[in-house]
Amino acid sequence: MSLLATTIAAIGPLDTTARAAAAARQDRLTKPQGALGRLEQLAIQIAAITGRERPQIRRPAVVVMAADHGVAQRGVSAYPSEVTTQMVLNFLAGGAAINVLARHVGAEVLVVDMGVAAGLPEHPALIRRPVASGTADMTIEPAMSRAQAQQAVETGIAVVQEAIAAGIDLVATGDMGIGNTTASSAIVAALSGVTPAEVTGRGTGVDDAGLARKIAVIEQALALHRPDPRDGLDVLAKVGGFEIGGLAGVMLGAAARRVPVVIDGFISGAAALLAYALAPQIQPYLIAAHRSVERGHQAVFTRLDSEPLFDLGLRLGEGSGAVLAQSLCIAACRILDEMATFGEAGVSNRPAVE
Amino acid sequence: MSLLATTIAAIGPLDTTARAAAAARQDRLTKPQGALGRLEQLAIQIAAITGRERPQIRRPAVVVMAADHGVAQRGVSAYPSEVTTQMVLNFLAGGAAINVLARHVGAEVLVVDMGVAAGLPEHPALIRRPVASGTADMTIEPAMSRAQAQQAVETGIAVVQEAIAAGIDLVATGDMGIGNTTASSAIVAALSGVTPAEVTGRGTGVDDAGLARKIAVIEQALALHRPDPRDGLDVLAKVGGFEIGGLAGVMLGAAARRVPVVIDGFISGAAALLAYALAPQIQPYLIAAHRSVERGHQAVFTRLDSEPLFDLGLRLGEGSGAVLAQSLCIAACRILDEMATFGEAGVSNRPAVE
Repeated sequence: MSLLATTIAAIGPLDTTARAAAAARQDRLTKPQGALGRLEQLAIQIAAITGRERPQIRRPAVVVMAADHGVAQRGVSAYPSEVTTQMVLNFLAGGAAINVLARHVGAEVLVVDMGVAAGLPEHPALIRRPVASGTADMTIEPAMSRAQAQQAVETGIAVVQEAIAAGIDLVATGDMGIGNTTASSAIVAALSGVTPAEVTGRGTGVDDAGLARKIAVIEQALALHRPDPRDGLDVLAKVGGFEIGGLAGVMLGAAARRVPVVIDGFISGAAALLAYALAPQIQPYLIAAHRSVERGHQAVFTRLDSEPLFDLGLRLGEGSGAVLAQSLCIAACRILDEMATFGEAGVSNRPAVE
Repeated sequence: MSLLATTIAAIGPLDTTARAAAAARQDRLTKPQGALGRLEQLAIQIAAITGRERPQIRRPAVVVMAADHGVAQRGVSAYPSEVTTQMVLNFLAGGAAINVLARHVGAEVLVVDMGVAAGLPEHPALIRRPVASGTADMTIEPAMSRAQAQQAVETGIAVVQEAIAAGIDLVATGDMGIGNTTASSAIVAALSGVTPAEVTGRGTGVDDAGLARKIAVIEQALALHRPDPRDGLDVLAKVGGFEIGGLAGVMLGAAARRVPVVIDGFISGAAALLAYALAPQIQPYLIAAHRSVERGHQAVFTRLDSEPLFDLGLRLGEGSGAVLAQSLCIAACRILDEMATFGEAGVSNRPAVE
């Protein structure tokens, strides 16, 4: 069997025993039951994923995957393709938003070249796994071959499982790729059945004409290729991107190892829909970080039946929202693990009202 | 002049020069303009409060004020009054939610006895400034005298200004006091003109009968005392609490020193309305952390024309949401201070679209 097939087969149901134990412990902690709201639910979910009543997170990491997109030449982005390369160098130098936020929350940043067109210099912090030098222009031909689509996903699986073997115990996803909101909108439209106009936003900031062009490009590509929504690899091959496929692989690979995955914004959301198309049982392993400004994001939450943790009006990608959510995951687990119980603290837990 | 009067007089307008410099710097950082949404606005607000283009936060603290409430004997809470004392001891032992979350975000916890009825043992981490042994039952007499109300507020000013003198540069507010959602709902109703039924929720978790009793108690107290909404001390004296007045003082004292204040949930929100009644110019110094489950919280945001940073379904108090928001404040300031500019990183900042 392929790495993809064995990985999908390894994603099992959550651990209901650990879930029940964590939920019971929440109710013994010195607070009114449920008073910490989503933090309590988050810790219980992580307990169920990891199979531990009191999960402890020691080494979070964000996997930031970068690649270029042939469709960028259609004028669908406010920035030129060379910005993909420049931003990867910025990640490696530690000057980008994701570096600052990851330092703030104590997460490692794993930068992966999934197919940056210009090529990148050797760098000790760069994981070089390019599938090709950027995708093809989806308005003319499929973005990639089916074999490349599988390679992208399997690269993500391999990268995350190497990181987990090295001790990473909470994964976040991040992306960089000029043109990748176009690919993501196409993926979300194909997999959710919503029209391109409803799931296409301004990305890094195109104007009205750019937005109209972007929607037309997606409609054109979907009409040309007719990707099969029951076949995740088909959708990825026809209208996807190497980093998006790689991120779907990161999610699958982490879930197969019972490691929770925090999903960033819209591009990561498109990757989550691909992962879900390939393995629907992945749903409870995914933690939606935040609601992006990008308008297609809601279709992702609807499809995954998930609700993001916060909405700070972010639209940057890179994993910027996901690392902030990792901090909430860690906080939630620390609450479950470190708070005193009513018994330990000698606090009355009996209603006063007659 | 009194400490209260000099403090109010010292709260000036924000620094527009620092604000403009911070906003200009945001637009030079390697991200699409505005792509970090509220994090960008938050850093700009903190720049304007502190008067520094690139504010750095090194020592955050949460001031948790505790006191008892005479009205608790009216059956308005799911827990008995002795829980106030027990939870303060839990804070001092490090076992409560606020301790865990403060450790997680690197904030110090300052526990202040503003009037716990049972009295508390000496403890090196306890700041003992009780105004009295709990308030009087507001359904029979004013909760406190006007002199006690002023003392409560001035105690808050003194406590926070001592902390700031010792190096604290970001303040959060937290509370503990069985019965204090009743006092807070009464304050919010009095100051916002909304009916008690609209601003009264279940607190730690009263049932329907308890909620009806709580609303009736507040209506009775407001009808008996008719607090003057133009006079913050009058409202505090008639239907408030020592910890709520103290937290209003914390806000005033911090703003007078140009230190940002992160407001926790509903009780802190009631304190913010008191501070705003005493000194309307405090509004831009306040950062609303989160939207609480407690239904009266929206009236606070409406009155202050503010929007909380997140909604995690919290209803615990203690400053639990505020310290999580402090982490966002620190992240926002680090973004502004540490990210590379387009020039520094050699990233193209010109639109690609023709």
